[in-house]
Amino acid sequence: MTDANKTTTLGEYLLTRLVQIGAQKIQGVPGDFNMGFLDLIEDHKVLKWVGNCNELNAAYSADGYARTAKTTTTKQQDKSDLHSHMNRVGVVVTTFGVGELSALNGVAGCFSERIPLVHIVGVPSTEAQGNRALLHHTLGDGRFDAFEEMSRKISISLVKLGDYASDGSGAVRALDKVLAEGVKQARPVYVSLPTDLVHLQVPKEALEKPLSLQLPRNDQDAEKNCLDVILEQINKAKDPIIIVDACAIRHGVIEETLELVNASGYSVFSTPMGKSAINETHPQFGGIYVGSNTVKEVKDRVESADLLIQVGSLLSDFNTANFSYRTPRSATIALHSNRVETGFATFEGVRMKQLMPKLSAALKSKKDARLTFTEKHLPKVDNILPTREEEVQLGAGSPDGISQAYLWPRVGQFLKSGDQLLAETGTSSFGSLSIRLPSNSLPCFHSQILWGSIGWALPACLGVSLATSEENKKSRVVLFIGDGSFQLTAQEISTMVREGLGPIIFVLSNDGYEIERQIHGPERRYNNTARWDLKAFVETFSDVNKTSDIQSSKQKTEMKESHVKDVKQSKVRYDCVRTKDELDALLKTDEMAKGVAEEGRSTLRLVEIIMARGDAPKALLGQAQATQKSNSYE
Amino acid sequence: MTDANKTTTLGEYLLTRLVQIGAQKIQGVPGDFNMGFLDLIEDHKVLKWVGNCNELNAAYSADGYARTAKTTTTKQQDKSDLHSHMNRVGVVVTTFGVGELSALNGVAGCFSERIPLVHIVGVPSTEAQGNRALLHHTLGDGRFDAFEEMSRKISISLVKLGDYASDGSGAVRALDKVLAEGVKQARPVYVSLPTDLVHLQVPKEALEKPLSLQLPRNDQDAEKNCLDVILEQINKAKDPIIIVDACAIRHGVIEETLELVNASGYSVFSTPMGKSAINETHPQFGGIYVGSNTVKEVKDRVESADLLIQVGSLLSDFNTANFSYRTPRSATIALHSNRVETGFATFEGVRMKQLMPKLSAALKSKKDARLTFTEKHLPKVDNILPTREEEVQLGAGSPDGISQAYLWPRVGQFLKSGDQLLAETGTSSFGSLSIRLPSNSLPCFHSQILWGSIGWALPACLGVSLATSEENKKSRVVLFIGDGSFQLTAQEISTMVREGLGPIIFVLSNDGYEIERQIHGPERRYNNTARWDLKAFVETFSDVNKTSDIQSSKQKTEMKESHVKDVKQSKVRYDCVRTKDELDALLKTDEMAKGVAEEGRSTLRLVEIIMARGDAPKALLGQAQATQKSNSYE
Repeated sequence: MTDANKTTTLGEYLLTRLVQIGAQKIQGVPGDFNMGFLDLIEDHKVLKWVGNCNELNAAYSADGYARTAKTTTTKQQDKSDLHSHMNRVGVVVTTFGVGELSALNGVAGCFSERIPLVHIVGVPSTEAQGNRALLHHTLGDGRFDAFEEMSRKISISLVKLGDYASDGSGAVRALDKVLAEGVKQARPVYVSLPTDLVHLQVPKEALEKPLSLQLPRNDQDAEKNCLDVILEQINKAKDPIIIVDACAIRHGVIEETLELVNASGYSVFSTPMGKSAINETHPQFGGIYVGSNTVKEVKDRVESADLLIQVGSLLSDFNTANFSYRTPRSATIALHSNRVETGFATFEGVRMKQLMPKLSAALKSKKDARLTFTEKHLPKVDNILPTREEEVQLGAGSPDGISQAYLWPRVGQFLKSGDQLLAETGTSSFGSLSIRLPSNSLPCFHSQILWGSIGWALPACLGVSLATSEENKKSRVVLFIGDGSFQLTAQEISTMVREGLGPIIFVLSNDGYEIERQIHGPERRYNNTARWDLKAFVETFSDVNKTSDIQSSKQKTEMKESHVKDVKQSKVRYDCVRTKDELDALLKTDEMAKGVAEEGRSTLRLVEIIMARGDAPKALLGQAQATQKSNSYE
Repeated sequence: MTDANKTTTLGEYLLTRLVQIGAQKIQGVPGDFNMGFLDLIEDHKVLKWVGNCNELNAAYSADGYARTAKTTTTKQQDKSDLHSHMNRVGVVVTTFGVGELSALNGVAGCFSERIPLVHIVGVPSTEAQGNRALLHHTLGDGRFDAFEEMSRKISISLVKLGDYASDGSGAVRALDKVLAEGVKQARPVYVSLPTDLVHLQVPKEALEKPLSLQLPRNDQDAEKNCLDVILEQINKAKDPIIIVDACAIRHGVIEETLELVNASGYSVFSTPMGKSAINETHPQFGGIYVGSNTVKEVKDRVESADLLIQVGSLLSDFNTANFSYRTPRSATIALHSNRVETGFATFEGVRMKQLMPKLSAALKSKKDARLTFTEKHLPKVDNILPTREEEVQLGAGSPDGISQAYLWPRVGQFLKSGDQLLAETGTSSFGSLSIRLPSNSLPCFHSQILWGSIGWALPACLGVSLATSEENKKSRVVLFIGDGSFQLTAQEISTMVREGLGPIIFVLSNDGYEIERQIHGPERRYNNTARWDLKAFVETFSDVNKTSDIQSSKQKTEMKESHVKDVKQSKVRYDCVRTKDELDALLKTDEMAKGVAEEGRSTLRLVEIIMARGDAPKALLGQAQATQKSNSYE
């Protein structure tokens, strides 16, 4: 088993697989049970280690990374194989106990929102675990399985490599199975790697073929039956429309969806979680539908349709304004990753990815008539600044101030094709929904609508920035986050600067957790956050060199060597705007418009927007009322 | 059940109990499933809500709070009742899913290190849970029990109040049981509180009596038998010594330990986790014992003894230099919270708290002779600055620079009676062990030696500061932390400033995770952290007022009202020292020596100490070698 041609180490095997399934960055924090594995990452030719400030931030960032579609994909013959097709995979490495538990909220978010994430945990040697030794980073009672049991609740699959200490073939088979599950189901998997198995010799033959990510083929009879039923329902309907949702993005049917829209000629809408799955400048695009919390014109249009074709729907409370769709289920066709529902009937195992091309083909012939109808009834979606009257109606204060009603269409005008937009849970995510995004061929809007963990977006912005930096065509990455959420994970700006990334971060400063105020306790102190001087904050991360001049030359050499591969840090720049004019002037500057590296050195921009407390996007007001009701404290 | 004299709300009941068991602060982050409960906290007469920057920081801070002994205790007749006797309890409130998972690492640390912590989670209404609704903050698959199952692994007891929606009496009985378990076993408990039960009417009669925290009485025959065996062993021995460890602090036998030391006349040593359980200026105190990693003089003394009397021992790897005690088990008496071990025999259920006073009484008569022996053989422990020769031997660079060998005895000279000292895992905790602490009657040294989660100490310093601020006699709170660990949870300085607290925070800047470098990869990039400008960082939190002048008067009134009870923020001050002379001069200033509020306004001090990369305290070098060996990557 030590023939170098036939074997490799378990650690190297794992890294090769990670590259094959779409990872180029591995994030996390070193700990004494994972450093031997980190050696392999640091020395790897393709993979790059990105050390985060803490493990929760690492998981959030890996989540953002995995959400970012590849724009330069390898052409593939067989589109039913998910392999390296548009998708990235997030990878986080933590250490036993202390490190892994810090990451759990981020991992659970990936489970909830269907993001493929590989969580690799460096654990004590198989010998120490066998002895139930009272090691640091343990609960002190010999329960070495407690942490993996916790992760099991939020992972789709799990492998303890310690179970294969004397079985290299078994180890790689188990590993392959778990990694494939994660990608196919778009959910987190957990891999524990004991220190003494990093260099375990394992057969490397399997690596010659990429991991099989082939979805099972639909039963052809079931698929045909399902297609017939769908077409019958469509033919009976006078006015079907398409609604694109989260799982269209998560389960890789972006191209199939566009094909269906084009072939059918129907108008198409997105949900909040499906936003940007379909190009919002597409001539058939009619806006965002969120049940009762939808802009009137769009709501009327969607609810006048007599058939909803839902692609990858995920009907959570915030994605549907507390389950307020008006169309009856009998008039709904729901295409899912693992089944199709027509009315109240379910076709289990009929997967949309294989069905959709057939549905598109069947619809193609009558496209033109439908298109004429669609165009005639399409709501007009655009980024139109409110009149002063409209602004006041929506609660704006002084005419100079930057109201929520003004901000979001103005941001919509600022955005351009190729941008990646992130919005934190809260005013930012609700506000962003009203933006008509610029032309995009791949999803470019990221928000954690279902899991909704505040603090997610800033590290996720790191992950999106890392992903876009892998592309030839550099994109602007733009983040909107509130001052409350910002404080949870703010230090991850440090990693952005260290990695030479230049996102534009807009912080909406309104003295606290505005979404919470809208739901409960508008004047409560617990919804206030401390005030931060954000100018000083970003300056913390600007280039500093504090090398002690009192160090020995040996120490200096070590320091130089270990920093020799550092990329050129970003510059940082802070701006603060309080009025519409100031915001407008800033957004029009060349630097903001470009937003990419000059002379090989990026600039990270933090723009603080001072906004009024109590002001909130209209969509948030609607959702807050619904939530208030459902969270009754009586 | 709605007679106001006989009932109260479940939320109020819980708060009253928390005060009774030793909480005056409740920490956490608001979320939409807990805000109704936060209303009650904000309006409470005794309890104070402290909002943290994130949930992990909240849990760490609550841990620090619970570690801090009360110096002003209520006198009690019966010392076997733990109630409100010296001890505080940490309380954290989070929201379902997103909030609670972020706190888990901090909760697990409390489990591992035996800290009583009440984790209260605001969860969706019983109705929503019953429907398995697809709510935000869920995993999206209807599993509402996943998160509590995760917490179950790291909690000693758990109550889901949703199980008692129509049974107020049952709810408070279950709650009482869980809270009592947490305090008695000094470990975390989990309480989930659905939104709709915060105002559930429950009988309040039980509140008239404080929660019974009475430990079961030792079986008198077993205890007598045990005492006889112990005394026989002691009488046979020529040279017994006492070693005080973690559980002496955690299980409330500080007074009993001092009594035993005084009555016996034996010399007494502490372990790392037991440090400060016994006053280090006590004439019988001989130093810190960590097995093979002990200062030679102390090691020789301990290992020449022919009987070890261990009080509350917790033999973890870092607490014993990888299990390297030399004294055989047959020559060991181990007193525990729930049993006594004499040699290889175990007396189950014989609790040290009740046994120790009897042991002390039995030893009293021959004290004087023993004391003479003790004094004659006692190692000299003091804070003596190294000679240049010693410093160089321990790896110091230039004579002006601040070496690890110099720093810790210098810090020992700086500390004074009444100070609280926190040390982060890493160079700080290993370095602190060598300090002889000033006179103290209660534990004043805090470090997370067993769990060892980097990032713990900064928020824990908030908790210790909150606790000491409750005392009449204000204490200095002094923290040592490395630049690597600092980055994980750094923003919690914000909460310290907002709460008007003034700890002194020393950051040891040596370009990364030095403890990791000592264990593995001294020149690896993954052990480098980004450089921060800590002056800019602390200035982030200095008083800023960004109130928008464009807000309406209604908004301004709301803002004013919700900030009206804010305490006066601390000032912040940054200093940087690079040489021994600079450090010395700074430590001698009046402001540092005082370190408490002037004119009612505290100053938070951050002192950056530039140190050489690769330099580490001697104790860390020893432990790193042992860990390296046990974490073999081959």
